[in-house]
This record gives sequence, structure tokens and C-alpha cells, in this order.
Amino acid sequence: MNTDMQHPVQNCNSVLGAIGDALYVIGGKWKLRVIVALREDNKRFNEIQRAVEGISARVLSSELKELELNGFVKRIVHTQTPVVVEYQLTGYADTLSDVLQSLASWGNMHRDKLRKER
Amino acid sequence: MNTDMQHPVQNCNSVLGAIGDALYVIGGKWKLRVIVALREDNKRFNEIQRAVEGISARVLSSELKELELNGFVKRIVHTQTPVVVEYQLTGYADTLSDVLQSLASWGNMHRDKLRKER
Repeated sequence: MNTDMQHPVQNCNSVLGAIGDALYVIGGKWKLRVIVALREDNKRFNEIQRAVEGISARVLSSELKELELNGFVKRIVHTQTPVVVEYQLTGYADTLSDVLQSLASWGNMHRDKLRKER
Repeated sequence: MNTDMQHPVQNCNSVLGAIGDALYVIGGKWKLRVIVALREDNKRFNEIQRAVEGISARVLSSELKELELNGFVKRIVHTQTPVVVEYQLTGYADTLSDVLQSLASWGNMHRDKLRKER
């Protein structure tokens, strides 16, 4: 069962640890969805909320704060009148490309499988 | 920002949808950790609980039921005395290899980054 991950038994804990670390920062229901929405372009709060279906303003606000704290998102304040606040991905968010790509491929594959089963 | 995912703006919704689909099935705090623990070898309930640090019996039980329902895990009952129940990954769980690999790599990279920042 573990051949294609090429880790012998003694490495299981370190793989588990690394995946645990990743999920600690980007796990949960919303973080990756917010990041994907921002990959398209910088967005204002309301634009993100429209792009990420089902997220409440309260939850989006707290997710954005955590994403900022962890260095994935920058809050940009344009001091014109009226003030415009935008959210932008940082370069560090780009390090998630492989994760997002593999999740998107798997999601597509899984969706096709479900379709065929119906 | 979207160059390395190679999706033009009009594809953003479908990528968001595919990632959403993936997270719907394997998102959350525990599912991938349970799957990684079982990649090493089949395990009994208590063995999984020891391998996945911090999971309660109640939560593990419900996670295992959902993983079974979604076709990632098989429950094997050995009808000896006493009866032994083991959990085993299915072939379908192997389709998650790329996702797990990319999460593990990213987790390692992120851990190193945090270490250097301290």
C-alpha cells in the first residue's frame, strides 16, 4: 500500500508529521478556497465572499486574518477617497501550487467517478 | 499570480469547484491523517488512534465511517475468537498519492521556513 509514496515504515511518522503541519496551516474548510479565489486577481472583501460560495462574512474575516498572519495574503489599503482595501496573495502563497494542482486533479477525477457511478 | 497553475481567468471557477469537491471529501482535520496512518499497514481501531495524535475515539469512529462510505477504507472482520476488526485502505485511497506527497513536501518546506525564522 505504501509503494508509491516510497517511504519505509520508519518514515511514516515523519510523513504524518509533515502532512499534519501542512493541514494545520492550510487545512479546514475555507483557506485553500480563499487562496484559489485570489489567484485569479486581487480582490476586495465582498468579491472574495462572492467567489467563495457559502462563506459568511464573519468566517471570511477570520480566515483572512489567519492567512495574513501565516504570510499567504497581504492587505493593501489604497488611501484614496473612498478608501479601498484589497487582498493580494504573497509570493509565499505560490509555494502551494503543487498542493492546489494535485487537489484540483484529484477533485476532477473523483467527480468523474461519482458521475459514472450514478 | 496564476501562471504556474496555467489556468486563464475563465477556468478559475472550475478549479475552485474541483478543489472544493476534493476538500468536501478529504478536507477537515483528520481524514488525510487517518489515511496516512493506514498506508503503513492495516490497523485496528486502537492502533489508528495511537498513530493519529490527538484524535478522540468518538471522532475517529465517525471519520472511519465516512472514509468507508466514500470508498477509501475497508473494515475487515476476522471471525476468530476473539473477533479482530482491522481497517485497510482500498485501491481507491491510492489515488490520493499525489495529494499526500505534495502536502508532505509542502509541510516539510513550511516547517523549515518557520525554523529559520525563529
